[in-house]
Amino acid sequence: MPLIDSLATTDALAGIFSDASVLQAMLDVEAALAEACARVGLIPEAAARAIRAAARAERFDPADIARQAAAAATPAIPLVHALRQHVAARDEEAAHYVHWGATSQDVTDSALALLLARARPVVARDHARLEAALRDLSEAHAETPMLGRTLMQPATPVTFGLKVAGWYGAATASWARLSRDWGEALVLQLGGASGTRAAFGGQGGGIADIMAAQLGLAAVPPWHTARHRLGALVASSGLYAAALAKAARDIVLLMQAEIGEVSEAGGGSSTMPHKRNPTGCVAVLAAATRLPGLVSSFMTAMTQEHERAAGGSQAEWPTVAAVVQSTGAAVHALAAAIEGLSVDRERMRANLDATGGAVFSERVVALLAPALGRDAAHALVTSALDESRSSGRPFAHVVRTLPEVVRAIAPDTLSTIDAPDQYLGEAELLRRQILGRRQDGGSAE
Amino acid sequence: MPLIDSLATTDALAGIFSDASVLQAMLDVEAALAEACARVGLIPEAAARAIRAAARAERFDPADIARQAAAAATPAIPLVHALRQHVAARDEEAAHYVHWGATSQDVTDSALALLLARARPVVARDHARLEAALRDLSEAHAETPMLGRTLMQPATPVTFGLKVAGWYGAATASWARLSRDWGEALVLQLGGASGTRAAFGGQGGGIADIMAAQLGLAAVPPWHTARHRLGALVASSGLYAAALAKAARDIVLLMQAEIGEVSEAGGGSSTMPHKRNPTGCVAVLAAATRLPGLVSSFMTAMTQEHERAAGGSQAEWPTVAAVVQSTGAAVHALAAAIEGLSVDRERMRANLDATGGAVFSERVVALLAPALGRDAAHALVTSALDESRSSGRPFAHVVRTLPEVVRAIAPDTLSTIDAPDQYLGEAELLRRQILGRRQDGGSAE
Amino acid sequence: MPLIDSLATTDALAGIFSDASVLQAMLDVEAALAEACARVGLIPEAAARAIRAAARAERFDPADIARQAAAAATPAIPLVHALRQHVAARDEEAAHYVHWGATSQDVTDSALALLLARARPVVARDHARLEAALRDLSEAHAETPMLGRTLMQPATPVTFGLKVAGWYGAATASWARLSRDWGEALVLQLGGASGTRAAFGGQGGGIADIMAAQLGLAAVPPWHTARHRLGALVASSGLYAAALAKAARDIVLLMQAEIGEVSEAGGGSSTMPHKRNPTGCVAVLAAATRLPGLVSSFMTAMTQEHERAAGGSQAEWPTVAAVVQSTGAAVHALAAAIEGLSVDRERMRANLDATGGAVFSERVVALLAPALGRDAAHALVTSALDESRSSGRPFAHVVRTLPEVVRAIAPDTLSTIDAPDQYLGEAELLRRQILGRRQDGGSAE
Amino acid sequence: MPLIDSLATTDALAGIFSDASVLQAMLDVEAALAEACARVGLIPEAAARAIRAAARAERFDPADIARQAAAAATPAIPLVHALRQHVAARDEEAAHYVHWGATSQDVTDSALALLLARARPVVARDHARLEAALRDLSEAHAETPMLGRTLMQPATPVTFGLKVAGWYGAATASWARLSRDWGEALVLQLGGASGTRAAFGGQGGGIADIMAAQLGLAAVPPWHTARHRLGALVASSGLYAAALAKAARDIVLLMQAEIGEVSEAGGGSSTMPHKRNPTGCVAVLAAATRLPGLVSSFMTAMTQEHERAAGGSQAEWPTVAAVVQSTGAAVHALAAAIEGLSVDRERMRANLDATGGAVFSERVVALLAPALGRDAAHALVTSALDESRSSGRPFAHVVRTLPEVVRAIAPDTLSTIDAPDQYLGEAELLRRQILGRRQDGGSAE
Repeated sequence: MPLIDSLATTDALAGIFSDASVLQAMLDVEAALAEACARVGLIPEAAARAIRAAARAERFDPADIARQAAAAATPAIPLVHALRQHVAARDEEAAHYVHWGATSQDVTDSALALLLARARPVVARDHARLEAALRDLSEAHAETPMLGRTLMQPATPVTFGLKVAGWYGAATASWARLSRDWGEALVLQLGGASGTRAAFGGQGGGIADIMAAQLGLAAVPPWHTARHRLGALVASSGLYAAALAKAARDIVLLMQAEIGEVSEAGGGSSTMPHKRNPTGCVAVLAAATRLPGLVSSFMTAMTQEHERAAGGSQAEWPTVAAVVQSTGAAVHALAAAIEGLSVDRERMRANLDATGGAVFSERVVALLAPALGRDAAHALVTSALDESRSSGRPFAHVVRTLPEVVRAIAPDTLSTIDAPDQYLGEAELLRRQILGRRQDGGSAE
Repeated sequence: MPLIDSLATTDALAGIFSDASVLQAMLDVEAALAEACARVGLIPEAAARAIRAAARAERFDPADIARQAAAAATPAIPLVHALRQHVAARDEEAAHYVHWGATSQDVTDSALALLLARARPVVARDHARLEAALRDLSEAHAETPMLGRTLMQPATPVTFGLKVAGWYGAATASWARLSRDWGEALVLQLGGASGTRAAFGGQGGGIADIMAAQLGLAAVPPWHTARHRLGALVASSGLYAAALAKAARDIVLLMQAEIGEVSEAGGGSSTMPHKRNPTGCVAVLAAATRLPGLVSSFMTAMTQEHERAAGGSQAEWPTVAAVVQSTGAAVHALAAAIEGLSVDRERMRANLDATGGAVFSERVVALLAPALGRDAAHALVTSALDESRSSGRPFAHVVRTLPEVVRAIAPDTLSTIDAPDQYLGEAELLRRQILGRRQDGGSAE
Repeated sequence: MPLIDSLATTDALAGIFSDASVLQAMLDVEAALAEACARVGLIPEAAARAIRAAARAERFDPADIARQAAAAATPAIPLVHALRQHVAARDEEAAHYVHWGATSQDVTDSALALLLARARPVVARDHARLEAALRDLSEAHAETPMLGRTLMQPATPVTFGLKVAGWYGAATASWARLSRDWGEALVLQLGGASGTRAAFGGQGGGIADIMAAQLGLAAVPPWHTARHRLGALVASSGLYAAALAKAARDIVLLMQAEIGEVSEAGGGSSTMPHKRNPTGCVAVLAAATRLPGLVSSFMTAMTQEHERAAGGSQAEWPTVAAVVQSTGAAVHALAAAIEGLSVDRERMRANLDATGGAVFSERVVALLAPALGRDAAHALVTSALDESRSSGRPFAHVVRTLPEVVRAIAPDTLSTIDAPDQYLGEAELLRRQILGRRQDGGSAE
Repeated sequence: MPLIDSLATTDALAGIFSDASVLQAMLDVEAALAEACARVGLIPEAAARAIRAAARAERFDPADIARQAAAAATPAIPLVHALRQHVAARDEEAAHYVHWGATSQDVTDSALALLLARARPVVARDHARLEAALRDLSEAHAETPMLGRTLMQPATPVTFGLKVAGWYGAATASWARLSRDWGEALVLQLGGASGTRAAFGGQGGGIADIMAAQLGLAAVPPWHTARHRLGALVASSGLYAAALAKAARDIVLLMQAEIGEVSEAGGGSSTMPHKRNPTGCVAVLAAATRLPGLVSSFMTAMTQEHERAAGGSQAEWPTVAAVVQSTGAAVHALAAAIEGLSVDRERMRANLDATGGAVFSERVVALLAPALGRDAAHALVTSALDESRSSGRPFAHVVRTLPEVVRAIAPDTLSTIDAPDQYLGEAELLRRQILGRRQDGGSAE
């Protein structure tokens, strides 16, 4: 876990993109290639065995390979060179069969797919935690009224359960998309020099199938410059992180001291003992801040020339690694934040009450309009709001004393004119709809 | 079609995002709302009729509404105000029922969905043309060999049919995704002040269903700050445009005078009579240059606060309009470019031959390796390449005179060592696989 | 002012990028070219006069030119064609001299420079308003203490004057950069077909100087594919908008009902009479949300091939127009918001007091550390914070009753332990430094 | 040098952003803080000595600190904790004075500035190499004509010297900007909890001056949420990389086998012995592909809340590290590519000649226009081009046989109508202007 990236990854994901892991993934591809070539009779079985035996990351110096990569425009060339040397040390003839028929990008793309395959369950586990925690939180607060807030100003009430359902709906729909795209990106690359598999003597398709099975990837036609599967994974990561960030932003806002409606278990300060920071949500927001630019970089790189690109594909590794790690860090942090979230129903109610009923002004207008006409109703409410502001009396109190109001609105309605639970509309119905979509096994909202 | 955007839209799409069209879309939403409210008995039928009658774009001054939009942070407020005045001129009471129970964003989001619904078939038509043209082009050149090029340098041969199939595969897979996401973004927005539909007195769901049916949109729970559907449309537009740009880049490169393998019907120069510019592909590349940044802007805007955002949603209209128009301009231009593409089989062959067989060096190594060992084979080929370069004799000729080669490679193989059609590997098989995936009705590559 | 862009421009800037204005700018370039060519004797004076006379935007149909632009990959070709026809209608010979020696991009780039030259004072005026308003606001609140907030949680106090000085410092430094870059981008483009001015018979330099003087632009070597000046203007716009957005975000946060420390004059809601929205700041945030992506699009477009690009430059017009208009809309909105900002000193003080002195916990630790050692001091303060939280007694009260504290901290210090003005550090000094930098005529912070 | 980043950094820059280096930078800040506090008498001299002694990166476990960073939303908190333990092991009292008065971001920002200070000369050295190599290359080819190419099609001739001067002009102007911005970003951060330096008892300014002097940074007011200096460095890196990428793109295009006008010393293929890849330019293009998105991420992060941000600043470290390393990798690769560039004057001439003079069609029109009128001249040239295309005879030959041409153009002009050196316009003058600007010590083009 590099220090410079410490807020942008998790331990597990940093391990997957570590030198040892990247190296082993490339070696696994070379070994699987050799074995598949041997299986179809293209190279000797003994050579394949020697290559597999040599293909162990701990025998290689990743820094050395990294250093030579620039001159070759790919880490595959120095890796193949080093692997040949290791094989030759034991079996000179076998060394001839290293990397047989393949091109550099076959190795780097397939290795990337292997890394992605390993990262997926890590992220999926955190998403499952998040999804469960959001569902539980929404259920627990189905009947907890709170201020709705639009353009960051008080609006008519909602329930906290509905708000959380909104987080849930966007997160699950975005995960369904990301998960599907992630799965479709787990594909073997095997095309040889120009993507025709010419060097495999007509057995390329068979070799690809064997390798794919061995590596746990799908076999598809070569995709050296057809990057839409990776692009979809990257773009959907951006959308998913954005969905998480919406929840994180809301929590950070609700956790402000003056609002105080929710609180992360949180982290401290290096200097101020009293502080409890929304560190989980901050990590989510940091990730979501980076992702749109990373998505943009990847999409720009997709205009790849002819059979293998001059620049585009070479920009991908660090971009994809950053996308996956940032996304994973975001869901990891948010899952923990939601699981540990404290909710303060009393503050929610107090913040509602502190508006003095002003947020029900829309309702009062609607109740008065049939009797007074909309314009007169609006004017009456506006002057009541002014009176409330200048006098400090709650709007609801002011309204209840106005003769036009008393005439137009039935007493029992008027007495509960500022009762949040009387003006929640279809909040609960909508909440259940959003949660239900997923429950019914549908492909999410 | 604004002059400043003339390279970034089409006539049809510029019309859809024109003042008259945007205005009418908002008015259509207001009219449908009134009718739905009347249908469930919330407002008088006569009011709904009066509102529908007044809701005609030609009666409004879009510049005036645009000018007032900034102060309100939405064009909906001045639009509603102007609509009320128009209605009141005929029926004062009806004016009270304009915009009943809705919030500004209900109008602007639903209007955007209407515009997107109209833009979709326009883009789909061009995609269908493109898809057909690509398929035909690939079929016509199934057996046309050409240089493969990797990192912009000559590599082993491919067929032009396979190259076009690659364009086809990425374009159709990306369109399948975009088309699906586009469809899912055609949803009604109806939530009222805070998204609970509280002002509809329990009839919000019914009103939404009626409006959705009337407007040809789907009814879903309010999505004021859940922007993943729009985000998916935007991101998939970026991926689709990138797939088109890959083809455009290849064509621009192949159309260089010194290569001359294909040619757009093309456009001229303001000053140089001899020029034929790849204007269609240039338009595609221009669009794909802009899109990643636009996608990034949209994703950044998705972190929207609470029940309606302070900044995020207000950034969307120009971004989505630019995304859709750029994407549409790209496919419109590429479809025409592919339909009119001239292909020069002779130049393709000549460019292959001009390498003197050097691109088959990989093949020669493979043929020699069993006899000589890989390292000796590689060294022999490398010195033949040097000899070819210094003497100017084709590599294939040099190779054929080397005694080691004559011993190791069978005469009939050696005589066709530089025959492209002998080293196309599985090009045709792969080409058919890529085209076939789509034909079989699958959801594409 | 297109409706779809109504939240992303101003009336003045929309006018500058309108069809009539863009068209006239291109015509102005053609007229200046003709006059300069006549001046050096390259074409007849009469031809220049005829061209100037015909070069009036109202005679042309911008939609028609826009429509033909796509096929030509530039609006200049149809414009030149139409201009030739207009000139020929009066003077057939003169028509031959239209666009003499120039290339399409000479016209479009110079026209863009003219538009930028007209937009600059519009934006500069709003910046000057903003700068003055920020300075005044900072001065007026030099001694207004308020909560500092870090990671959105209460921290030690600052002054509102210092906070505003921070906005001022970033805004003025970023404007100084933008203003300089904007000035440097106001350059003539005149290179002819390949940028060598070959068609001007050795008089290209002289013609360029005359044109530049006439158009109010600087003369520099042709820059058809050297886009760093435009790139700098675009990038600096992004930095400037980000500086404005920091202020806008702070204001939106401070304007939340539960905080209530400042308030925009603000805008209303389409449905809720009680609402006062931070519409100015929302416009700023919307602009800043879009700009990073637009900057990214422009930078991507800068990799322009050879003597004139295939895609890159064709992506620029809509991008630059969006950048300038968004930036201008942002500063226009923020200047008004700051000018009209209400500040509630009492709420600032009340929000400080509501922390019960907990934000001074850092100070208490520092005062106790010499006597108790840092760890013991930290532990004591932490337990006092816990006690305060559970009992509801203010932290400052709890602390004042602890015997260790009474022993370690002098009575007069202890009695003012929660007085904000006793713990403002160098707030005023720093505030003056930030404001002063600019006053001293320096190139800003 | 992490393997996953091997194409996106250099050995030297990877070292600067390595764990050991990042850790030591943070420790250097803590040590300098302690010493400065001691100097002004705020903490004991002995404590400062103990802290300095302990502040050695090799004693710390960076992975451990990285792992704890997420929970704290900063690596500074676990670093301070670990440092306190190391100090306490030797001198328990001194441990109390670790991190005295500072906040986490003081440490991380100042450490970043230290890393940037170390990276700057590394990048500057490569830029100096590049600048010298470009100047030499331009001078050497002042009189080497070659095809101009616009929209990737043959246009009128230029000189290779002018083309290289264009690369030089954009690169030097962009470097001047980057270098200045880089210098201005080398600033100390010292603000304490809320940026008022309150915990330093009135000595914050003095402490900052001492620390800045010690660390080789400039002292400025705290900039916890005023990120314009870092933003300028990042944005200017993007502009600089774009300028380099323009040159790289041109070289990659000129190096295509069918054009063959220049050649990188280049790198080989993992499988094809004949290949020579433009590996240097590919690295530049990869970097420039990533940078616009990274710039966008940074700009998005600049909207930082209040006194310290919740998300924005936490996104910066990996972004800035990627920006600096990518930029450095680009100039490192391009400098080497230019130094080793082979130029093939004969191919340049041959490619010009292969157009048969068609690229001089503009010239012929201009020469014929006075006699025939522009339209007739244009029509005549167009039919000559058609004739040339259909007959295969060079355009210049066709033209020389046309009676209208023979009548209108003087014999000596006609005989050299296709001589490139007769139609270079002001190429050499402009070349000298571009090179000269910089030589005269100006702040570049």
